[in-house]
Amino acid sequence: MSMFKKITIIGVGLMGGSIGLAVKKKRLAKEIVGVCRRESSRQRALRSKAVDRATLNLGEAVKGADLVIIAAPVGEIVGLARVCVKFMKKSAILTDVGSSKKHIVSSIEKFSSKKTNFVGAHPMAGSDKSGVENAGPGIFKGAVCVLTKTAGTNTRALSRLGRFWKSLGCRMLILSPEKHDEHASLASYLPHAASYALSLTQNGASVKLAAGSLKDTTRVASSDPELWKDIFLLSSGPSLSAIASFMRNLEKLKIAIKRRDEKTILKFLRRAKKISDSIPGR
Amino acid sequence: MSMFKKITIIGVGLMGGSIGLAVKKKRLAKEIVGVCRRESSRQRALRSKAVDRATLNLGEAVKGADLVIIAAPVGEIVGLARVCVKFMKKSAILTDVGSSKKHIVSSIEKFSSKKTNFVGAHPMAGSDKSGVENAGPGIFKGAVCVLTKTAGTNTRALSRLGRFWKSLGCRMLILSPEKHDEHASLASYLPHAASYALSLTQNGASVKLAAGSLKDTTRVASSDPELWKDIFLLSSGPSLSAIASFMRNLEKLKIAIKRRDEKTILKFLRRAKKISDSIPGR
Repeated sequence: MSMFKKITIIGVGLMGGSIGLAVKKKRLAKEIVGVCRRESSRQRALRSKAVDRATLNLGEAVKGADLVIIAAPVGEIVGLARVCVKFMKKSAILTDVGSSKKHIVSSIEKFSSKKTNFVGAHPMAGSDKSGVENAGPGIFKGAVCVLTKTAGTNTRALSRLGRFWKSLGCRMLILSPEKHDEHASLASYLPHAASYALSLTQNGASVKLAAGSLKDTTRVASSDPELWKDIFLLSSGPSLSAIASFMRNLEKLKIAIKRRDEKTILKFLRRAKKISDSIPGR
Repeated sequence: MSMFKKITIIGVGLMGGSIGLAVKKKRLAKEIVGVCRRESSRQRALRSKAVDRATLNLGEAVKGADLVIIAAPVGEIVGLARVCVKFMKKSAILTDVGSSKKHIVSSIEKFSSKKTNFVGAHPMAGSDKSGVENAGPGIFKGAVCVLTKTAGTNTRALSRLGRFWKSLGCRMLILSPEKHDEHASLASYLPHAASYALSLTQNGASVKLAAGSLKDTTRVASSDPELWKDIFLLSSGPSLSAIASFMRNLEKLKIAIKRRDEKTILKFLRRAKKISDSIPGR
């Protein structure tokens, strides 16, 4: 038996498309409906076979759905959720996949708590690529999916959504939206900020010498600027504090090099290597 | 016919071992002799089949060689070269594969100019892994190899060495040692410094959320701390200036986020993405 009768995915891009493909593969829904903003993206969504049906009509699409997943850019999630709750049935679960959680969860909980079961989610699977053409059902395998829990979270909806993401291959982690943003600021916002700045520091001559280190460290600087502008702004507090603590560390290395302090440099690099070596999947 | 009769590789680790395997594959030498520091590494070098013969006797190994390649850690290259020039024949070429060039080339040229044909080299192929067990003949394919040219460089030796690295699959770039260090500081020293600092900024909770961005940006922080301590110190000037200009850029992004200056953030990220997208092999 299917886990959900009707799943509606709002935004059928890399993430929404991958969810659709994975849900189909695992047979977790009887029907998957995709919601697109433009007719051209509706056609691309249908061609990708990530959804059974695709429409531009948000209200019609979420009506009767058991699970509604907002996979739109972070900056649009709250506005879309506001429309969703007006059309969703009472027992249905509403969730999102935004990289920033505190602002999104607290905003949506303000208008959704009594009308729907909202649980914020952040599957830590993505790519510097975008678009449904780059979607694949396997991107969630082994990835961490954070679900947020607040005083207002319906625990039955939380555990049902947890089973859903587990079925797609994710390892589950339940955090408060604040803790999510704090950890994600170090694990994701900061690497992106550093990667963009590393890329911007290059010039025509240095790029010609690009080997593995530059290629790897700047890969995510090829990510969508609009998306990352929104994440940095929605999670500006944690982002700024992660960038500041990174800069303090780099400053320490800089001073040690300047002073030719071999011992401090070695200690720094060894501690950093130990952490890098410990990263899951290294 | 072989390009060289006898090639001696000093230091049979990841780099030296890969050169040996590639030379064998392309049949560029009649005999490859490896020089190791310890009996245990001599045994590992022999087992890897990267060299035909391996010895602990540096003088004996370079005697009669047509090409001597110092593939030892950067901090030891100058000292080893000093011994090599005493035993090498006059027509032979001496080269190294160190990531730092200005200090190495100027030091070696002081004692080698009349005695041997020294040409500094830096094949931009490597790994965060080390050891001959991780060596492979394919690591040079498509990689850039910088050869250094100074007023004292023998141009025949330079072009012969260029043909050698081309045969191993490299794209050649001839630069002064100073220009090499300047470009490498942006393309390699800085990404390593940032990667180590990114890694050090993580904590137990953030590492659990590690997705592609953190994994990629911290991969090279798993590189050998001793090696990188030496590179940062040998090329401290260019390293420090690259780190400083990176920090200035990151500071700009930080200020724009703090001011919620959407336009400046977007401009920053878009320019960075454009450079990242332009990196060869992206």
